[in-house]
Parts: sequence; structure tokens; C-alpha cells
Amino acid sequence: MIVTQQDFLDLDKQDPLASLRDQFEIPTGLIYLNGNSLGVLPKAAKARMADVISREWGEGLIRSWNTYNWISLPQRIGAKLAGIIGAKEHEVIVSDSTSVNLFKLAAAAVKLRPNRTKIITEPGNFPTDLYILNGVKNFINQEIEIITVPSNEVMQHINEDTALVCLTHVHYKSGTMLNMKDITTAAHAKGALMMWDLSHSTGAVPLALNDANADLAVGCGYKYLNGGPGAPAFLYVADKHLKELEQPLTGWFGHANAFAMSDDFEAAPGIEKTLCGTTPVIGASALEVGVDIMTKVEPQQLRDKSLALSEYFIRLMEPLCETYGFELATPKDQSIRGSQVSYTHPEGYAIMQALIAQDIIGDFRAPNILRFGFAPLYVQYIDLWNTVKALEKIMHEGSWDQAQFRAKNKVT
Amino acid sequence: MIVTQQDFLDLDKQDPLASLRDQFEIPTGLIYLNGNSLGVLPKAAKARMADVISREWGEGLIRSWNTYNWISLPQRIGAKLAGIIGAKEHEVIVSDSTSVNLFKLAAAAVKLRPNRTKIITEPGNFPTDLYILNGVKNFINQEIEIITVPSNEVMQHINEDTALVCLTHVHYKSGTMLNMKDITTAAHAKGALMMWDLSHSTGAVPLALNDANADLAVGCGYKYLNGGPGAPAFLYVADKHLKELEQPLTGWFGHANAFAMSDDFEAAPGIEKTLCGTTPVIGASALEVGVDIMTKVEPQQLRDKSLALSEYFIRLMEPLCETYGFELATPKDQSIRGSQVSYTHPEGYAIMQALIAQDIIGDFRAPNILRFGFAPLYVQYIDLWNTVKALEKIMHEGSWDQAQFRAKNKVT
Repeated sequence: MIVTQQDFLDLDKQDPLASLRDQFEIPTGLIYLNGNSLGVLPKAAKARMADVISREWGEGLIRSWNTYNWISLPQRIGAKLAGIIGAKEHEVIVSDSTSVNLFKLAAAAVKLRPNRTKIITEPGNFPTDLYILNGVKNFINQEIEIITVPSNEVMQHINEDTALVCLTHVHYKSGTMLNMKDITTAAHAKGALMMWDLSHSTGAVPLALNDANADLAVGCGYKYLNGGPGAPAFLYVADKHLKELEQPLTGWFGHANAFAMSDDFEAAPGIEKTLCGTTPVIGASALEVGVDIMTKVEPQQLRDKSLALSEYFIRLMEPLCETYGFELATPKDQSIRGSQVSYTHPEGYAIMQALIAQDIIGDFRAPNILRFGFAPLYVQYIDLWNTVKALEKIMHEGSWDQAQFRAKNKVT
Repeated sequence: MIVTQQDFLDLDKQDPLASLRDQFEIPTGLIYLNGNSLGVLPKAAKARMADVISREWGEGLIRSWNTYNWISLPQRIGAKLAGIIGAKEHEVIVSDSTSVNLFKLAAAAVKLRPNRTKIITEPGNFPTDLYILNGVKNFINQEIEIITVPSNEVMQHINEDTALVCLTHVHYKSGTMLNMKDITTAAHAKGALMMWDLSHSTGAVPLALNDANADLAVGCGYKYLNGGPGAPAFLYVADKHLKELEQPLTGWFGHANAFAMSDDFEAAPGIEKTLCGTTPVIGASALEVGVDIMTKVEPQQLRDKSLALSEYFIRLMEPLCETYGFELATPKDQSIRGSQVSYTHPEGYAIMQALIAQDIIGDFRAPNILRFGFAPLYVQYIDLWNTVKALEKIMHEGSWDQAQFRAKNKVT
């Protein structure tokens, strides 16, 4: 039984991934359980950024598009990500934001299924996914109907009118992980396309897009991939759709031969057709550092540690649930749990601010969710112990109940 | 008469903007005439980037959205840009790439003029502008007709079917500057909307969007603004359209209250409605350094120096035109000239590579254009002399005529 502080210290000593923490700048004394929202800074990113700024931009200037191969950054990082998400190298590319990529691929999906008018997603999906689908409906085809049904009912709602099923693989609030293969198979059985948002999965849980036969996917660079705030996102298009797929944001970087500067658009033949504007070189270079670290980790080891962290956290929290009214909002079943644990509490916002004031960083999601993310690359077992002990003290003393902790920040 | 090397050295001594060059890292011995493609590195950007990486991201982590006000970066930089482009602070915002912003606003324009089906632009406009308009046609409304007519004939083609006129203010190849006020007025006379691409204007020529009564505009952050490779772009929506305007890329950062995490999209009331995904914090922070420098310069002083540079360059080049077959592709009339000078030459590509090999950086645009950009913040008068003398030698000796200079790079 793991019950004492020493037990948690021992778990860290035995952790085969423990040494990875040294690759990141974790502020002394800080417990960071928010890597599901913004990942930490890889130490190597500092030198890499200085180099990109001073040498590649400052000295190389325009020549660096060729000499430092800036022009291939989207494909190069995409190819590295392919290994992490279970795809082929030429199926993945880095560009724009997750939201913009969702728009590209949802619009593309609708065009690939011209006689179908329904897009199925779930209520409470990550907001930008819902908003972007709404944008596709309002601007691409008003006849599209966006059907939101709970994720466990999605499969039975897919039918011959369904153009696209669009779901987030690990839910941003509950941490529930959906069965990628089963849902994708159900979509295909009715001739629909399947798009996965991997923002809360990539770098946190093993992914196998090809094995699941997924059609389309998008994902975020600044969470578990540690790519930096607002890092470029990525997208995936299955091999079999690459030739036929058309997307609306046909900017010059998606052209078959951009520097021919032709008046006529000719889409690049491969995944490059999903690029739009000029590559954000600085942001993409930071992202690459995070991705490089992730490529060196064995996904199952990552998963094992992630589940151990969330499992111990849930157990440590059980007495607090009983005494202080926290309710677990994350599946107890490990097979459908991502890499975060959430609790509801009516005073969740103030309680989380009180924790943050003690340098224990989780976050709050409206209306009443406290989220604790367990990025297995750098979270320690002892962090769990210290977090729950601090939370227990806050609740016992009622120290969360102060005006300073109720004051709402712009960003939660 | 300005004719000798000493004359050019004297011009630099008298240049009221000369001291600005010290704010940038210009590699020793390099003559950089490509600020119209990628601006140089502001010295202050090095420290600022290190701070954003180490302190704001590394130490502040997720808290920095509030503590360093990352959440307001798009508006804050937009407000600074407003002064540079002659707009009100709440009309300008930083986001995405120029291409993505073109899509947002072209789609929005079509929606604002629902009974009109024509978009007028010019052949040979910057490729991404044409490609994006094509994407709007193919995905937003197939009935849209994109009419390309030479810019000097645009006004006579605008009629009651015209939804949008979309032009680049300073042409990327020829450097021709269009009359913003006249064309905008002509568009409005027929009830059409006017969108300006300011990518090759911003930070190079005085701009007065409000005075011209312009409806929409987009622009690039990495050229004369020195925002870094692939910097975020900006867009402008005139006050009078802010309430009514709807754009398709309705990501969560464009929501009236993003962190309410509601399922339903409610557009932000102001210019924020044009935001889409998470702000690229690192890239935006680099851009801000460049913009900050630009805000401190008097636009007319910038224009005076820019025209002096291009004028002297044209004069120095005249003998080479006669002897070696360069043809000026930029207006001699200063009132319609931007901040670059272009020449056609059948061997333009190899000749430009030979210049670049001597650390004189201009660029080439297919099929036969040599471009020389004169960023007035840091280009010196003596650079003109040295460039033309080097070019003369290359042409006289025929040293451009080598296989190494004919080898095509991916990016020109």
C-alpha cells in the first residue's frame, strides 16, 4: 500500500522516467499540474531560441529559408509527430492553430462527403471545436446540421446523412478518453469521416491513428508537447484522403510551387496542401524542441506513469471528497482515463486560486471544475502527496474563503 | 549632384534617421536590401525573447496569461499598429498569418454584401491574395466571380455586382503604390467594400486607412515591421463594420467570453471577433519589439528617406540599364512608388545569386525580377553606391554566368 509521504518519495526513486524531469525548467518550489493546459519550458529551448533569433534570423536573415531549411519546418516536425500519434510521416504537418486546422479539415470533410449534411459532435466538447464547426455551417454550407449527443451515444446516431464525426479524444474537462478505434469504425460503417482532436492526448497517452483507421486529426503543440505558449498546432490527413482532399485556406504555402509566384492556385500534392500562410519560424522552432524530447520516450512507459499518477491522486483525494464535497469528474476506469483528474466543487474557483497562491498550479474550468494535469514527463509522485496535503489544509482552515481568491482573472 | 562615393557617405552623415540603424543587428559587411521580404533583428528582441522564454513561459507558466497579460497581446500590438496605419486603436488586431486574415475578411465581406457576386482584384497580385480569394469562391460561395483587371482599370470595372475590391497597396514585384483614397472612394460609389493588403506598405510608406475610408485591411508583421520570420500578421476592420461583421474562423479567442467555456458561440463585440485560436505568444512578443521601434518614427521622415534611397538607386542604375539590359520595373513617379525598386533581366536569377554571394542581399521573383528593398530604418545611402558598383563589376566580368548561381533554391 502506498500511504505515506515516504512511499511517494520511493515511487519517484523507482520511476524509470524520473531523469526526464531534468530536461525541463521547473521553478523551484512549484508543483505544476497544468501541463495539460500549457507545458513547461524544455531547458534546450532556451539555447535553441537564442540561436534561432540571433543566428538564423539575425545573421542568416532571408537566406535562412534555405540554409537553415525553415521552409521544411512544418513537414520536419510533422514527421517527428507522426511517430507520437501513430501515423505515417507524410500524413502529419505543423501549421496555424488547432482552431484554424479544425476549420480546414472540417470544411474539407464536408466537401469530401457532398451529399451528407450532418456533423456529429458532443455537447461540452472543447469550445473551439464547437465554435469552428458552427463557423463551417454558417459559411461553408448552411444546410449542415450540427448534432451534439453525449459521446457514449455518438455511435448510434451516425447514419447515411453523417458527413463527419468530430470528437476530442481526451475530454478537456473530465479527462475521459474515448475509444478511437470503435468510434472510427462506427463512422466508417455508415460512410462518414472521422476527425479526432488530439489536443489533450498527444504526448500524454499512446495514440494509433493509422491503426484506428482515422481519417483526419488535429492537435495542440503547447500542452503535453511543451512547445511554448500559443505554439503552432498540427494536423493529420490519412494517406488515402491526401489526393482528393481540398481545404479552403489555400494560402501560398499550400501551393505546389509557391515560389513560381503563379496567379493560379495548384494545391501541393501531399500534406503540404493544408498549409496556408508563411510558417511561424520562431514558434515552430520552439515546438520542435518539445517534440524532440517526446520522440525519445516510450509511449507505454509514459502511459504507465501517467495512470499511476492519476490513480494515486484519486486515492489520496478520497477522504477530501468525503469531508469537503469534491466530486470526482474523471473516470475511475483507467482504460478510459486520459492524463488528468478533475473534481467538481461549488467553490472550485476560489479553492483553486488558494492552491495556486501556494505555488501548486492546477486550473479551473467553468462552471465548477478543478483540473489537475499529470504530465508524466516531469510530474513527480511526491507532487501528489504535497498537493493533496496542501488542499486538505486549505479546506480544513477554510483559507480559500477570501475575496482575493474569488476575484476573477481574465484567463482561468 | 550626388555622384561620388563621398556624396553617399555625406548623405548618411546628414540622415536624421541614421541613428536608428543602431537599434538593429546588421551583420558586419552585409548590405541588406531585402527588408521588404524579411526585416532585420531589432537588438532589443534578443533580450525580450530571452525574457519571454525564461521568465514569462519558464517561470510564470500558465499564470502569465494574466500576470504578463498575454491575453491582451493581440489588442495591445494592434493598438500600436493603428498609429502606423492611420486607424483607430480598436480597429486593429494581431493574429494568424496574412493569408488566414485575408480569408477571414474576404469571407466576411461577401457576407456583408449578400446580393453581390463579384470580387475585383488584379492579375499578378501577391499570389496568396489570389489563392485565398479562390478559396473563398470554392468554399464560401461558388457563385462568386473573381475578376482580375490591371490595377489602373479597376475603378472602371466596379459596379453594382461588386461585393469587394481587394488590392495590394504596394505591389510586391513592381513596388507600384496605388491611390488608396481614390480606389476606395470608387468602390464605395458603387456600394462595394474595399480591402487593402498592406504587407508591402506598413512601416515603409505613410498610411491613412481612416482618411481613405477603407473598410478592411490586412498586413504582414515580418517585413518592414521587423517582427521576425513568420511573425503574426494583423488585420483592420473599420469601426462602422465592427458590429455587423461576421467571419468564418470562429475560434474560442474570438468569443465574447472565451473562458466561460460555453457551448454556444457568441462573437466578441469588437475587433476581437476576428481572433481565432490561441495567441502565438512568442511570435507576437517578437513582433511587438519591431512595432515599438516603428511607433517612434515620424512617417514623413521615413517616406522622405525611402524615396531618396530609391531615387538615388534608380539614378545609379541608369548606366547599367543601358549597358547590361536591366529594365526598371518600378514607377519613376515618386508619388506612386513604394519602398523598393525592381528590375527585369532575363538572367535575373543568376545575377541576384552572384550579388548575394558577395553579401549584398536583394531577392528574385519569378519569372525575371530582381528586387531591391529600401527599409528606411536601417538602409544606408552608401549601401546604394556599393550595391551598384558590385553589380556593375559582376556584369562587366560576367561572373554571374556560373552553374552555382543558376542552381535554383527552394525559396527565392
